[in-house]
Amino acid sequence: MPAEARWRAEATQQPLLDPRLFPYEFGQHTPRVEQLAREMAATVVEREKQGGSARAERQLIRDSGLLNVAIPQRYDGAELAWPEIYRIVRYLAAADSSLAHLFAFQHLQVATILLFGSVEQQRHWLTRTVQERWFWGNATNGRDTGLKLRPHEEHYELNGSKSFCSGALGADALVVSAPRGNNAVDRVFMLLPAQREGLAINDDWDAFGQRQTDSGTVQFEGVFVDSDELLVSGGQSPRSSLRVCISQLILTQLYLGNAQAALDGALRYTREQARPWIGAGVTSAEEDPFIQKRYGELWLAYRSALLLAENAAQHLQLAWEKPALGAAERGDVALLIAEARVTAARAALDITAQIFDAMGARATASRFGFDRFWRNVRVHTLHDPLDYKVRDIGNWVVSGVPPTPSLYS
Amino acid sequence: MPAEARWRAEATQQPLLDPRLFPYEFGQHTPRVEQLAREMAATVVEREKQGGSARAERQLIRDSGLLNVAIPQRYDGAELAWPEIYRIVRYLAAADSSLAHLFAFQHLQVATILLFGSVEQQRHWLTRTVQERWFWGNATNGRDTGLKLRPHEEHYELNGSKSFCSGALGADALVVSAPRGNNAVDRVFMLLPAQREGLAINDDWDAFGQRQTDSGTVQFEGVFVDSDELLVSGGQSPRSSLRVCISQLILTQLYLGNAQAALDGALRYTREQARPWIGAGVTSAEEDPFIQKRYGELWLAYRSALLLAENAAQHLQLAWEKPALGAAERGDVALLIAEARVTAARAALDITAQIFDAMGARATASRFGFDRFWRNVRVHTLHDPLDYKVRDIGNWVVSGVPPTPSLYS
Amino acid sequence: MPAEARWRAEATQQPLLDPRLFPYEFGQHTPRVEQLAREMAATVVEREKQGGSARAERQLIRDSGLLNVAIPQRYDGAELAWPEIYRIVRYLAAADSSLAHLFAFQHLQVATILLFGSVEQQRHWLTRTVQERWFWGNATNGRDTGLKLRPHEEHYELNGSKSFCSGALGADALVVSAPRGNNAVDRVFMLLPAQREGLAINDDWDAFGQRQTDSGTVQFEGVFVDSDELLVSGGQSPRSSLRVCISQLILTQLYLGNAQAALDGALRYTREQARPWIGAGVTSAEEDPFIQKRYGELWLAYRSALLLAENAAQHLQLAWEKPALGAAERGDVALLIAEARVTAARAALDITAQIFDAMGARATASRFGFDRFWRNVRVHTLHDPLDYKVRDIGNWVVSGVPPTPSLYS
Amino acid sequence: MPAEARWRAEATQQPLLDPRLFPYEFGQHTPRVEQLAREMAATVVEREKQGGSARAERQLIRDSGLLNVAIPQRYDGAELAWPEIYRIVRYLAAADSSLAHLFAFQHLQVATILLFGSVEQQRHWLTRTVQERWFWGNATNGRDTGLKLRPHEEHYELNGSKSFCSGALGADALVVSAPRGNNAVDRVFMLLPAQREGLAINDDWDAFGQRQTDSGTVQFEGVFVDSDELLVSGGQSPRSSLRVCISQLILTQLYLGNAQAALDGALRYTREQARPWIGAGVTSAEEDPFIQKRYGELWLAYRSALLLAENAAQHLQLAWEKPALGAAERGDVALLIAEARVTAARAALDITAQIFDAMGARATASRFGFDRFWRNVRVHTLHDPLDYKVRDIGNWVVSGVPPTPSLYS
Repeated sequence: MPAEARWRAEATQQPLLDPRLFPYEFGQHTPRVEQLAREMAATVVEREKQGGSARAERQLIRDSGLLNVAIPQRYDGAELAWPEIYRIVRYLAAADSSLAHLFAFQHLQVATILLFGSVEQQRHWLTRTVQERWFWGNATNGRDTGLKLRPHEEHYELNGSKSFCSGALGADALVVSAPRGNNAVDRVFMLLPAQREGLAINDDWDAFGQRQTDSGTVQFEGVFVDSDELLVSGGQSPRSSLRVCISQLILTQLYLGNAQAALDGALRYTREQARPWIGAGVTSAEEDPFIQKRYGELWLAYRSALLLAENAAQHLQLAWEKPALGAAERGDVALLIAEARVTAARAALDITAQIFDAMGARATASRFGFDRFWRNVRVHTLHDPLDYKVRDIGNWVVSGVPPTPSLYS
Repeated sequence: MPAEARWRAEATQQPLLDPRLFPYEFGQHTPRVEQLAREMAATVVEREKQGGSARAERQLIRDSGLLNVAIPQRYDGAELAWPEIYRIVRYLAAADSSLAHLFAFQHLQVATILLFGSVEQQRHWLTRTVQERWFWGNATNGRDTGLKLRPHEEHYELNGSKSFCSGALGADALVVSAPRGNNAVDRVFMLLPAQREGLAINDDWDAFGQRQTDSGTVQFEGVFVDSDELLVSGGQSPRSSLRVCISQLILTQLYLGNAQAALDGALRYTREQARPWIGAGVTSAEEDPFIQKRYGELWLAYRSALLLAENAAQHLQLAWEKPALGAAERGDVALLIAEARVTAARAALDITAQIFDAMGARATASRFGFDRFWRNVRVHTLHDPLDYKVRDIGNWVVSGVPPTPSLYS
Repeated sequence: MPAEARWRAEATQQPLLDPRLFPYEFGQHTPRVEQLAREMAATVVEREKQGGSARAERQLIRDSGLLNVAIPQRYDGAELAWPEIYRIVRYLAAADSSLAHLFAFQHLQVATILLFGSVEQQRHWLTRTVQERWFWGNATNGRDTGLKLRPHEEHYELNGSKSFCSGALGADALVVSAPRGNNAVDRVFMLLPAQREGLAINDDWDAFGQRQTDSGTVQFEGVFVDSDELLVSGGQSPRSSLRVCISQLILTQLYLGNAQAALDGALRYTREQARPWIGAGVTSAEEDPFIQKRYGELWLAYRSALLLAENAAQHLQLAWEKPALGAAERGDVALLIAEARVTAARAALDITAQIFDAMGARATASRFGFDRFWRNVRVHTLHDPLDYKVRDIGNWVVSGVPPTPSLYS
Repeated sequence: MPAEARWRAEATQQPLLDPRLFPYEFGQHTPRVEQLAREMAATVVEREKQGGSARAERQLIRDSGLLNVAIPQRYDGAELAWPEIYRIVRYLAAADSSLAHLFAFQHLQVATILLFGSVEQQRHWLTRTVQERWFWGNATNGRDTGLKLRPHEEHYELNGSKSFCSGALGADALVVSAPRGNNAVDRVFMLLPAQREGLAINDDWDAFGQRQTDSGTVQFEGVFVDSDELLVSGGQSPRSSLRVCISQLILTQLYLGNAQAALDGALRYTREQARPWIGAGVTSAEEDPFIQKRYGELWLAYRSALLLAENAAQHLQLAWEKPALGAAERGDVALLIAEARVTAARAALDITAQIFDAMGARATASRFGFDRFWRNVRVHTLHDPLDYKVRDIGNWVVSGVPPTPSLYS
């Protein structure tokens, strides 16, 4: 058995992630999460190189029953709290960051229905989601203003296109957004079955990271939208603007998931495969003072990000549970999430780049796939510019003004 | 009224620290802590330049009654949990980092008695500490092996000297350590009244930071030590080795205290005194995108350190409360404290250096005293080398072996 | 014409590299270098994805006649000075970092013959190299001790294998090294035609960067080596140890080449394709203060590395020209090269990672191939650990002792 | 002899600076520069703590005859090229950064006369400067608009004040600037004897670094200015705007001077005084791998800054020698100086802060004065914001537009 195969085989008998990196459990959901993660991990290196849509694995996600964890019990969902949902996302992201993205965005779409839909709409769509094991995609990229919603007498019509539509390809239903007026921030969400006539979902996603997120373009040609498919109950309240918060904290989990997996894989490689450097005067790579120091640094980066992310999730949950959320409270949550996201992004960029300094040249062989972590994180951290995130935080620090709810903050 | 005087005067009507930087309270102790902090802050700039011993302020600390917060209720102390004690230390450190050091080391000496002393010794010394409002100093620098304990038939005798004896000058009693054998790590603690014959406490501390910590040299010439002044009950158990953990987490609070004060002062200066840069195209310094970004960065550094420090304190308390602490549990606490200390040290070094980039050249006037934060942190972060702290963490990360309890870990 | 095709087409009419990034010319060689670089650049994105051997492009290099630039005029070579050779390498590396590697290693093999070969051997092999347009590969990875040279009565025999044999596949001749005794550092070089019986050159190089360097494994089964194929004139003198210096400074050029290309491509993208960020309040990405600042930072990183690399090359040339080089002089050159290499490696890692922050999410589309720069640099900077390079420098700084000539220093 | 005194005494027999840090000589000026530097260094630690004006040492500078090195030979000056002048400044700055500032600003004032004065004015003032060994001060802080020049029939009158007037106290003559119209950038220079009636030079400089630069406030009450004391020949040409370039490159030398001295002092301390860390497993601090690595890092920072500074000085000299300088050429020089200044500022901040990590806690004793380097650099790097310097560079990188000549660029 060649070295890398043996290495993989042994890996399957070990925990997927060093419990020091991921010191959490999922209660009754543990076996399903664990199995799903192992199934994803078993094929991720090859699939990631290939790119394109991971149909079989998306089906595994559907089959896991975990697509309903954000759905309230009153609609037959498992109704986990956000901190728990985020941990599942993070754990799966260590196995396959693309599929974890799709899994996570399911819950964002569920949250969209809960935040913006009427009780009637919530019941209708969420109950169906549970019953039919729907996988939701989205066409809501707010920066892309190429999709227009035109009102008719009794219905609406969509024309144009949306880019970066993660999970749209292969979805059962879509959350779609379109500008309400001239202002990109003022937009309306609507729900459409993926089979709706006039919808064309392209298989044209081809970034160098997050390669299997099916984030292609969706084209709309005279797409009919029924009035009751529009979500108009949430308005533009502080509470409904939690949608962006939920989304930004999903990004954070994906960064941390890649960071975890990179650290875990690198540590295993260092212990099992790395050779001591000839000038180091040590008999194993583990004893090398600079390798030890490197891992110490990466650990510190990881831990800061982890604590900020967990802290932000707890506060998001508190805000989520408030029936009437004030603007100031919403601002506080947004800032906690911003600090978590920036810190996690940087930690993940550093960790996924520097593991190689600890592993050495031979770890760059394509068969290990160790570069995918950096590529995933590099692509995903560009979702919206971190520089402006930090400036928003700094503006609040110096002037006391929290970021205005927007498409990205 | 000149600008800086007005600035100080106004400051006294404002909270000492922006509550976003310090979102904690002290319950019934709030008024005393608050008053003590304000009294320290009122004179700190001048005293810090002067250096030497702050006798009057040490008396204020004695008078505050807060010297007994670590003493168990059974010995008439206030018995606060470590997270609460650390917050008081951190708050006071924002006002005066030297005096907060002395205040904090009081509790380290109390902990030493609790960890190493017999029940009899604990009762004797701690009850007296409460009754007589004793301020404890130390002569326990483990790296300095210049002090020798010689056994006589019924007593012991100390000869030699100790350096870096924080708080010794002006103390009522001293915790002293001396090597038990040839091994520096294996040492014995003992308790002595500061007036004991043969003891000479020098006023020779003159570092460029932490200037009023009275950390001079203590000389011992034939100093008598009674058998029952030796603390021999704790032995070298995991529990007794928590002493180092408590000490390392005190350092952490001092870094954070300086970081808080630096940020708080700089933000106030930016709002009230800074002028917009001529090429910035803004009408106030607060609107400058680079100043905002700078504060965002410093905030991120601060927050990571804060969360790690709070997390470490919670775990220390759990360990403290366990009657029988295992070596592995002790190792976990030590690692959490190590990650907090390194992160806080770096955050504090960055924050105290970079506030000037946000404030500009005029903030370097000596009357503001803004440079004392960096000097305090620079001196104090050298207590033991951070590089080895990070290596210890990394060694544990890669090999699973926690740091061996020692004088510094 | 789709955006990216137009972008490429326009690019061909522009200089390959912004002259501010590469302010050098090649005199009479300019047209050939320029043409070769453009031919490489035209197909690099596709080839790089594909990986494997670039036979056609290696032939273009052969046809360019530039393989003889390091060969002395007395052997009919072009005999450029090292600073000039390095600039050509750097320029080609901006077009195709893998092929520039192979091109550069040609000159390393030529230098090996000049440093270790007798005058007779030099004339024989170098004249032939010019006449037959030989492309040299190598099997000299010193860390791989799997190749053994066994002396017979009148000849030698090679058995075993070598990994990381850059350029071996597709080469006309090979420089091979094998340990002379038990000490890996003490090794002997020999020259072999690539067709020599018993030699098997594997097409098994598959790293995630520097993908077309043909750096696979070479296997030796009873390979005959004639006595006069051994290079034994150079011995272990300071002068012959310049071989490592030449090699280390080649690595440096490849880092800089990737950094140049990354910066050049990103700047072009920012000017032509990037959209201003919605919260930035500017009408073009070029005006964004954070994007400007980012490019300022990357420029600073690049410039420091560039000046150190140019400086090191000048001093290498001076050393090269000395018939008798002292150990101290050799040490000085090695240190200048070490500081250039480390600085260039870090600059290139930062630049190739951070260009994306300036370009934004859409620049991650695979068709642009912008991630190849980071992948190239990440793989190549692991050649030997930079941490030990920095320690070598620091050891010299503090103790005055230059690094001992070895396989990597 | 106590440790520190011995250390100083030995130091006087060693070169002032490790020749690896300062590999330059001053030709015939060597003895005078060397003596001046040693005299400054002998008292700098005490004087720096004291602050205030260093009258005796300013006299030593006068007596050295070096105040005329920028004055053309035709006016009896020594007429050194700028690279040579800058090296003298840098060398003296390692000895005493405040006095080197005053020394350097002498040459800035000489350059002001050469750039803006008529031939007649040049001859008059520069000849007198040589003959009477004048020390020039300035009152030219362009950001301070508190000084007004009012035209009378045959003369002018100055009223108001200027802050940050380096070297004014104790000067023989002053270069003064006042706005010409409403635009702060459009200003006129004039020359005044320091004794001119109505001039009051305050001894009110009290920053925490660069403490003896006599950079206080100058007050003007009805100060008479003769028409021929106005320098109106230079106008606002690219050439005359070299004044800012010269000034910015002076700042750069002071950063490097402090960095040199910090490194030199720290290396000496590490070799002679530092003790190995107890957990390091080495017998001297010099062998500690983390201390070696630290020095390696600091060396790399220093070297990048040094090469950029030397490169900028060479190009400044070329521009200086051109009778008619184009705007583009001036822009190129300004950018080279900007990159040198930013890089040197950061290197110096890092070096002066991190030497302590290499030296350890005992090096913070005030008697060593090792903190003055950081304080000097921290104050001086705030002259004008580095963030905007980097943005200027980045704007040029991305858009091709060089910084507009102004008070700071």
